Amino acid sequence: MTTARDKLFIFDTTLRDGEQSPGASMSPQDKLRIAKQLEFLGVDVIEAGFAAASPGDFESICAISKVIRNSTVCSLARANPSDVRKAGEAIAAAPRRRIHTFIATSPLHMEKKLNMTPEQVISRAVEAICIAKEYTDDIEFSCEDASRSQPEFLYRIIEAAIREGATTINIPDTVGYAVPSEFGAFVRDLREHVYNSDQAVWSVHCHNDLGLAVANSLSGVIHGGARQIECSINGLGERAGNCALEEVVMAVKTRNDFFKLGVDINTRQLVPTSKLVSSVTGFPIQPNKAVVGSNAFSHASGIHQDGVIKHRETYEIMTAEDVGWTSNRMVLGKLSGRSAFRQRVRELGIPTKSEAEIDDAFARFKDLADRKVQIFDEDIQSLFDAKNIQPQEISFVSLKQESQTGKTPVAEVTYMDHGEQRVGRAEGNGPVDATFQAIESCAKSGAELLLFSINALTKGAEAQGEVTVRLSVGGRVVNGNGSDPDVLAASAKAYLDALNKLAKVEERKNPQFDHEPTP
Amino acid sequence: MTTARDKLFIFDTTLRDGEQSPGASMSPQDKLRIAKQLEFLGVDVIEAGFAAASPGDFESICAISKVIRNSTVCSLARANPSDVRKAGEAIAAAPRRRIHTFIATSPLHMEKKLNMTPEQVISRAVEAICIAKEYTDDIEFSCEDASRSQPEFLYRIIEAAIREGATTINIPDTVGYAVPSEFGAFVRDLREHVYNSDQAVWSVHCHNDLGLAVANSLSGVIHGGARQIECSINGLGERAGNCALEEVVMAVKTRNDFFKLGVDINTRQLVPTSKLVSSVTGFPIQPNKAVVGSNAFSHASGIHQDGVIKHRETYEIMTAEDVGWTSNRMVLGKLSGRSAFRQRVRELGIPTKSEAEIDDAFARFKDLADRKVQIFDEDIQSLFDAKNIQPQEISFVSLKQESQTGKTPVAEVTYMDHGEQRVGRAEGNGPVDATFQAIESCAKSGAELLLFSINALTKGAEAQGEVTVRLSVGGRVVNGNGSDPDVLAASAKAYLDALNKLAKVEERKNPQFDHEPTP
Repeated sequence: MTTARDKLFIFDTTLRDGEQSPGASMSPQDKLRIAKQLEFLGVDVIEAGFAAASPGDFESICAISKVIRNSTVCSLARANPSDVRKAGEAIAAAPRRRIHTFIATSPLHMEKKLNMTPEQVISRAVEAICIAKEYTDDIEFSCEDASRSQPEFLYRIIEAAIREGATTINIPDTVGYAVPSEFGAFVRDLREHVYNSDQAVWSVHCHNDLGLAVANSLSGVIHGGARQIECSINGLGERAGNCALEEVVMAVKTRNDFFKLGVDINTRQLVPTSKLVSSVTGFPIQPNKAVVGSNAFSHASGIHQDGVIKHRETYEIMTAEDVGWTSNRMVLGKLSGRSAFRQRVRELGIPTKSEAEIDDAFARFKDLADRKVQIFDEDIQSLFDAKNIQPQEISFVSLKQESQTGKTPVAEVTYMDHGEQRVGRAEGNGPVDATFQAIESCAKSGAELLLFSINALTKGAEAQGEVTVRLSVGGRVVNGNGSDPDVLAASAKAYLDALNKLAKVEERKNPQFDHEPTP
Repeated sequence: MTTARDKLFIFDTTLRDGEQSPGASMSPQDKLRIAKQLEFLGVDVIEAGFAAASPGDFESICAISKVIRNSTVCSLARANPSDVRKAGEAIAAAPRRRIHTFIATSPLHMEKKLNMTPEQVISRAVEAICIAKEYTDDIEFSCEDASRSQPEFLYRIIEAAIREGATTINIPDTVGYAVPSEFGAFVRDLREHVYNSDQAVWSVHCHNDLGLAVANSLSGVIHGGARQIECSINGLGERAGNCALEEVVMAVKTRNDFFKLGVDINTRQLVPTSKLVSSVTGFPIQPNKAVVGSNAFSHASGIHQDGVIKHRETYEIMTAEDVGWTSNRMVLGKLSGRSAFRQRVRELGIPTKSEAEIDDAFARFKDLADRKVQIFDEDIQSLFDAKNIQPQEISFVSLKQESQTGKTPVAEVTYMDHGEQRVGRAEGNGPVDATFQAIESCAKSGAELLLFSINALTKGAEAQGEVTVRLSVGGRVVNGNGSDPDVLAASAKAYLDALNKLAKVEERKNPQFDHEPTP
């Protein structure tokens, strides 16, 4: 642990800003699982959602608040009484809880979006903070689009916010427009001009539109004096996303000679957390992604020939083990017993609550081992995926298909829909298309297929395939995932998973809501 | 065009450092096609390869040197006479040609890797430049691992290099260890202490291990005074890769108020170039990748409802059109004529040399349109992929397969191998596995499957699937790609494509060669 002075707080917004990515919507179970993993990773603050956005968001934050004990649970809220009260109610069960309220401060946003005068904006902010105090002492205030706001106005509104009780002041680069030296100087200027600046922790929230989110965040810390960074796993977030948690944490740790700051993150959980988020959202991680990409630690050529390399430090500045790439992966199989399974689950750092939970997963493991000779770490991770645990209303039963070059492929899918068995048959352009058409011939969802991808979860010819499908109906976009050693069965499962989500994802109450940018 | 003083030179190393990514090896045809596209994009220098690495590398650079007219063609060379001569011979046909020679300058590398004294290192560098002058006046010298070298030694070796005739001095952050403010100050210090520094263009080459490559490169330019950035498409490169060309170019363009530098890049070719490189290497682009990711320009919600957004500039700092996302994509079909096809090819900026080339592609287009109702831009791009044009020694004929839940899937693949027809039948864990086993039952390559991924090339249920297969035999790693509306046929094509490459990729002459880090 580090003292308050030299500690850098890590604020994770995967579940809030990350979920605002088109196609990254997550089920309540997915969110809870990610929140548990974030706590295990050691993040200081988990932004669990935007309570006023929808009843589903509200419920998700409530559920997370009930189980998270070590991290602070936070809800976003626009600076209005109703949003702030919703946020306060949603986080009530959390022992450490924060309300994060925001309002736009740039002339463009105040005039075009809010249609308010600067004075009205200040009094809205003050009022929101005053109400937030009824629910918690931990209050964060964000000046949306700060990097395009006038400094003199920011001094005034930030002073007022701190006076009213804001304990964290966040400076977002909402449109990802900043460059590092400029952004660091901007934050420093604010801290120097705000007379009560030392009564709050300063925070930065940078978007990655120009590929500079990590550098801008670090500049806000080292040159601006900020002590909280808002970031997300895999850099997930609106448009080009946010500052990537794994990159910013490893920069501060690896270059501690330069940054001289403490970060309470268990870096060996970075890769497992990254894989979990990638699997839930279906967003692939490119091989050359820093820290968590599959090539991040492999040299062009030396992969299998480590002995040839004279000195490891000639090209490696951190080790693969440091960030959670297990190099000695134990492979389990059909004959592995419960204790070997349990030990691997522990080693992988999968948070489990009870022995019963392990028993259930072990049963699924045995079932998989019947169909797959070797079970890898990623297979074990997938056994704990929420969708493999929770009974779904729409679920896969079986698939039969045939295809031959020159003939039209046909497929027959059997599935359960709220207890009733349905069988659909159809032709298609290819076997995947035929499979989807077979389901649609019964389900008639009218969904548009926006994305279809398959990744081999594990290596080798008997890889388990993980399929992601993204469906859209009437402007709502959901992802479905399915895994199976047979990619066509995985495709059917993913399509049915997406139909489950479409049935559950409710319409946002206010259709205009989504169009308001957030920090 | 801009004057020499305020122009920022863009040096692309996709074909050299990018190709050193595990699994990113490219065929000579792929490299030639990417080189043409890079010239069309407007890069100043194309680093086409490392002539001494293998006869294949040498031939590739020769072939590229024969067709590229507007960009400078460059070959990398270690600082020894034989490497430099190979580089000089390889680029001989290019009207603008550069030799890029390098040697390690950090105490760690000089001692452990080179086993040389600092004086020996300087005389090697000088000798290499002296020989390079026999081939060209355009000579770049790199101090490998510069960011971990002693400044006093760098002053000496750089002064000597410029005195001998180096016209570009490159400062690499070889291990991706630098942070922006430090790196910019480091480059400035060198420029201030090297007495003849104004007789060369200064360059930076940053790796992305901590997610800071773009920021470090920009800091080297704005604070250090560098005027060349070495970068690659999609940030492809060893480990976590290099500075991403698309990000650094858009940062300089979008924030020209800050950088005040000219870049001669046709930004509307960024997305097509990115897609080409992704398709050749099989490396996916994550949706939240800046500039070229599929989500980079879509707001969480407003995708289909642009009208709702009050003012575009409230959240967009550049437009999707600026970087080559065509929003009004014309969809072609079976009945589209040659002139509509030709027009779309032009609009997409696909470089074609002759009307005969368009005729050939149009024939492939008609063939595809027979199997696929709507043809999208990505389909048209794929028609020009080298593997769809060049006759392959091993090629797909047909596939027949069946699978049913509870039964073992079976597949039968027919293919041509050097003029002979082969038919393989096999069972597998799933239909993809059965397809691969069927091919292996004849081919008996013994290859290990390292990666298998499928992406829908185009939207909708009748998407054309693009499959990437990565195979490894005896330490050699190749990627194969295949596309077809039927993902199983695409899988078979990808596997056969990889077998073709395995047959062609020659062993590197010196097995130790690859283990020497490069800038």
